[in-house]
Amino acid sequence: MTALATALAYHKAWTDHDLEHAMTYIADDVVCHAPAGLVQGAQAFHAFMGPFVESLEAAALLACYGDDTTALLMYDTETVLVPSAPGAELLTVRDGKIIEMRIVFDRLPFAEARSRP
Amino acid sequence: MTALATALAYHKAWTDHDLEHAMTYIADDVVCHAPAGLVQGAQAFHAFMGPFVESLEAAALLACYGDDTTALLMYDTETVLVPSAPGAELLTVRDGKIIEMRIVFDRLPFAEARSRP
Repeated sequence: MTALATALAYHKAWTDHDLEHAMTYIADDVVCHAPAGLVQGAQAFHAFMGPFVESLEAAALLACYGDDTTALLMYDTETVLVPSAPGAELLTVRDGKIIEMRIVFDRLPFAEARSRP
Repeated sequence: MTALATALAYHKAWTDHDLEHAMTYIADDVVCHAPAGLVQGAQAFHAFMGPFVESLEAAALLACYGDDTTALLMYDTETVLVPSAPGAELLTVRDGKIIEMRIVFDRLPFAEARSRP
């Protein structure tokens, strides 16, 4: 499986609301560079992704590229709080598991939505 | 020039603080999907990018991929306000000019920095 195939399988799983299946592509010692800081280890990663996947209403893959070790994806998501929340992920894959991930998305509309009375 | 070559030339120009050279890769009728909304036309795009390029202290390209029409980049930036502000760009290129761009970055640390006393 190429890094891109692993990335797409992971992406399909979480956008299908199947976080448990998505986690099968995540290494136990994953290191995730998220906007709020480092998320280290599969358990912390599961806790990080869980609320987002639960709030997900729709997702669309905008672009995906990769090579043997690395994949880069951009997608749009529709969530309960924010109607359009695009994100990008740079994934490093080893032996079919994502060992490192950098996620970029805009936290501001989520913060604004949460602070609404 | 492939879309990726155009994207990299554009990226090198603005990260070298040469926004005028960067603009030579931007179509007059560019459509840019930015976190705060649509930026339409080269003049508006120049006004959008100007303050960011002025505040840029360093940049590092993390990954770049592309094909004939499209390129996808992720990079990290260090700015006056925010020490690490990663971004991702999905670029559509026609005849060596960027005609459409989707930029993803986290506005929250910029908003927080601006609201500090």
